[in-house]
Amino acid sequence: MSKIRNALISLSNKEDLRILLSTLNRFKINIISSGGTYKAIKKLKYKCTEVSEFTGSPEILGGRVKTLHPKIHGGILNKREDKKHRRDVKNNKITNIDLVVVNFYPFEKTIETNSNKKKIIENIDIGGPTMVRAAAKNYKDVAVITSVNQYPALIQQLKKNNGSTSLEFRKELSQIAFTETAYYDTIIANYLNKDSTKKFQDKKTIQFKLIEELRYGENPHQKSAIYSHKKSLNLNQLNGKQLSYNNFNDINAALTISKSLPKNTGVVIVKHANPCGVSIKKDKIKCYKSALACDPVSAFGGVVSCNFKVNSKLALELNKIFLEVIIANGFDQLALNILKKKKNLRLIDANKFILSQELRMNLLNNATLVQTEDNIEFIKKNFSIVSKIKPTKQQMENLIFAFNICRYVKSNAIVLANDKTTVGIGSGQPSRVDSCQIAIDKMKKFLNPTGDIFAASDAFFPFVDGVEKLVQSGVNAIIQPYGSINDKKIIKYANDTNTILVFSKTRHFRH
Amino acid sequence: MSKIRNALISLSNKEDLRILLSTLNRFKINIISSGGTYKAIKKLKYKCTEVSEFTGSPEILGGRVKTLHPKIHGGILNKREDKKHRRDVKNNKITNIDLVVVNFYPFEKTIETNSNKKKIIENIDIGGPTMVRAAAKNYKDVAVITSVNQYPALIQQLKKNNGSTSLEFRKELSQIAFTETAYYDTIIANYLNKDSTKKFQDKKTIQFKLIEELRYGENPHQKSAIYSHKKSLNLNQLNGKQLSYNNFNDINAALTISKSLPKNTGVVIVKHANPCGVSIKKDKIKCYKSALACDPVSAFGGVVSCNFKVNSKLALELNKIFLEVIIANGFDQLALNILKKKKNLRLIDANKFILSQELRMNLLNNATLVQTEDNIEFIKKNFSIVSKIKPTKQQMENLIFAFNICRYVKSNAIVLANDKTTVGIGSGQPSRVDSCQIAIDKMKKFLNPTGDIFAASDAFFPFVDGVEKLVQSGVNAIIQPYGSINDKKIIKYANDTNTILVFSKTRHFRH
Repeated sequence: MSKIRNALISLSNKEDLRILLSTLNRFKINIISSGGTYKAIKKLKYKCTEVSEFTGSPEILGGRVKTLHPKIHGGILNKREDKKHRRDVKNNKITNIDLVVVNFYPFEKTIETNSNKKKIIENIDIGGPTMVRAAAKNYKDVAVITSVNQYPALIQQLKKNNGSTSLEFRKELSQIAFTETAYYDTIIANYLNKDSTKKFQDKKTIQFKLIEELRYGENPHQKSAIYSHKKSLNLNQLNGKQLSYNNFNDINAALTISKSLPKNTGVVIVKHANPCGVSIKKDKIKCYKSALACDPVSAFGGVVSCNFKVNSKLALELNKIFLEVIIANGFDQLALNILKKKKNLRLIDANKFILSQELRMNLLNNATLVQTEDNIEFIKKNFSIVSKIKPTKQQMENLIFAFNICRYVKSNAIVLANDKTTVGIGSGQPSRVDSCQIAIDKMKKFLNPTGDIFAASDAFFPFVDGVEKLVQSGVNAIIQPYGSINDKKIIKYANDTNTILVFSKTRHFRH
Repeated sequence: MSKIRNALISLSNKEDLRILLSTLNRFKINIISSGGTYKAIKKLKYKCTEVSEFTGSPEILGGRVKTLHPKIHGGILNKREDKKHRRDVKNNKITNIDLVVVNFYPFEKTIETNSNKKKIIENIDIGGPTMVRAAAKNYKDVAVITSVNQYPALIQQLKKNNGSTSLEFRKELSQIAFTETAYYDTIIANYLNKDSTKKFQDKKTIQFKLIEELRYGENPHQKSAIYSHKKSLNLNQLNGKQLSYNNFNDINAALTISKSLPKNTGVVIVKHANPCGVSIKKDKIKCYKSALACDPVSAFGGVVSCNFKVNSKLALELNKIFLEVIIANGFDQLALNILKKKKNLRLIDANKFILSQELRMNLLNNATLVQTEDNIEFIKKNFSIVSKIKPTKQQMENLIFAFNICRYVKSNAIVLANDKTTVGIGSGQPSRVDSCQIAIDKMKKFLNPTGDIFAASDAFFPFVDGVEKLVQSGVNAIIQPYGSINDKKIIKYANDTNTILVFSKTRHFRH
């Protein structure tokens, strides 16, 4: 147990200060403070020693240097049980500081609300983190509070232990304190780095803020939580049960694809993080029905993402099958009324959702693979038409539609499309020809599309067999990356069968 | 440009100190230092002012408080262009410090090599990070060097600018400095947190250290790098080309499965991050051949992971097909000689590789899903035998083998097995019945297994159809989680067809 005699308080967020002071006062704890916090304490009519009086040094540089003083840090950092330390304390007339209550200049908030560089830099706290780190290092003797949220726990400790805190409690506070400083400096480093052209720095840190604990993870025996890197996820839930781990994962997959489609014209259906139906059409009902038709069995219990505002007509249609989540760029009031009849149905307004343009990370065991996003735009020069028959503008658009969906399907990926709608998706197979077969089987099971059938492959066909399978099943236009030693054979096969063949310069694996 | 007159140097790592000093001396830069660094500078015969002389305050608490002084921090933090700051500098007899060269007490190294808690805590640097943060905040006027690796760039700057540094350079240094402090405090927070029972803290940071930039990411148009969280990945590459992004991803998948198998008896073949063949057998050759037989087409260009040491006999076998990577618990010298004949073939000794027991993270857009690993052990009470026919011990072992592999296959996952070898794997489908079909098709394509055929499903069958398909294709024992409204129908169907049916309490989605 460590009896608190002197507390140093320096707060940017002064919420609940009165509650804190009244408890400290009850246990006759002396208070040291400066600046705005000093004024706030005096206003609440509590006794307080100014830092400059405590140190015997003036506050200088407009507040930049106040607490960076041996009297303060000697008071925090000395080991109470160490004889030599005790001698130094005595010889240098140092007073022990047993409790440090500090929250930092609001750097994160400032960059969110302000673009004035001077003001932003001024909000980098130096004195605060130093006191917090010193107290956290010396947790054997000193308690450190870094957030208003910790006041109740501190007050409870003081009451329970008659003005003392337990070592266990102080150790926990110490750990939280170092997380706080690490978090704070991560935000600063990332802010200063945002204009840097260097993609892969030697060291990196990422900060996470808990949004909520989830009921469970991918499976009920796994514990789980969701954290954000930004202020908000910009997903506004309007109805339904709490989002689950798998919901969040599927929503992310669905929105990533939706954002790649033209605005106001797309529906994406996702199941088990893979698309099972995508369509682009101006008519909202047709668009949804087409996406659904691709694989109505898989869509059962799936996630639907509409790249537009849902109206009542579509709502009635959506209500016909069991869906876990519906995401849209807003919902009409009438549509909401209809959909909310299903109490469990999760409705998400993703109007404000923005795709992160940051690096994509893949955390493995003790290592992380980092890469830039696969977000290159599909412009003309990315493709070359290698077959004798040339695609029309509309055919080319359909090929690019299929190729774009392909890059969001787990590799090896084959996407069949008709009239800007997927009609067969083969995914996640170790062999490309198997993915072809799956896509074809799906198409034959649910649809008998008329007109052109387009096929896209996320990587080149190593042999002619996959292409053969597609053409024999009715495909008449194929888009694929080049690069196989059998490319020439594939071109010949395409020409022999009057198939349109387009080569892409880029491959699009996604595992 | 900012002319450097005074530099403060405080180093834990004193490498290349002479080179630094000779350059500073050339530009007549005064040096301030203390403790071990001061002694090292004097030993190299350079002039140096002691910190205690500079501040007029003694070093106290065994070095815990040296530089935490207004003279130091006033010297660093004052804005050279600010009139009020200049007045404070003058009135308080502060000397400007224009360059801070600091590297921290080696906390990370200490925890790797030491278990003495006192020593570990003593290696939490307070003064160093404070000077670095102060200098980094005031980068408009002050340069901050935090690593020996930066000396060449500093020396180049000084030479180029005749003893000054550019603002651009100082800004870059500032960003690196905050990354350094964030990284440092992350390691401390995680160390202090390692015994905590709280899984999901309110805030979290993760640190990354660059291992190397990779040629490209999942695709050639994506830039990529690999970072580690630990000292080393414990993957020892003995031969072949540089590992690629996809190699690392596949190696991780392969080793995760290998580590779940009994020691010294397993082969795993992975392609596109999914297993395409797994076998447990005491005979190494049989084990590899069985795993390969599951899907020899997909194994082409795949990653093979042997849960044992590879001998020359197996090496000859492995050399028969094209593989990208072979991972093993070591290789005999003879085996190495044989395999190294293929210059590009990547050989990895993973003898020292340990699976991380940390939380699994799934980074989405602006958010991260965090969950505990799906690593529960499959003990008896996890299962209940619900069919009339009961499995023998061996049959039960085979069912658990299939069920275990199932949890590493992307959902929906169906694994068919025979004699502790996979004979058909269906993965990554939005519909379970499709995964059944894929697994069956694979089995029929490559094998005609005799004896029992076991099937495992990662989640329950929503309808009887999938089970029907399996049984009609020769499966005579099934393991699956319970929980469907059709469970009773499935049990009845199993009994009607003399099928062994085992229910698991746990589901094993993996997306």
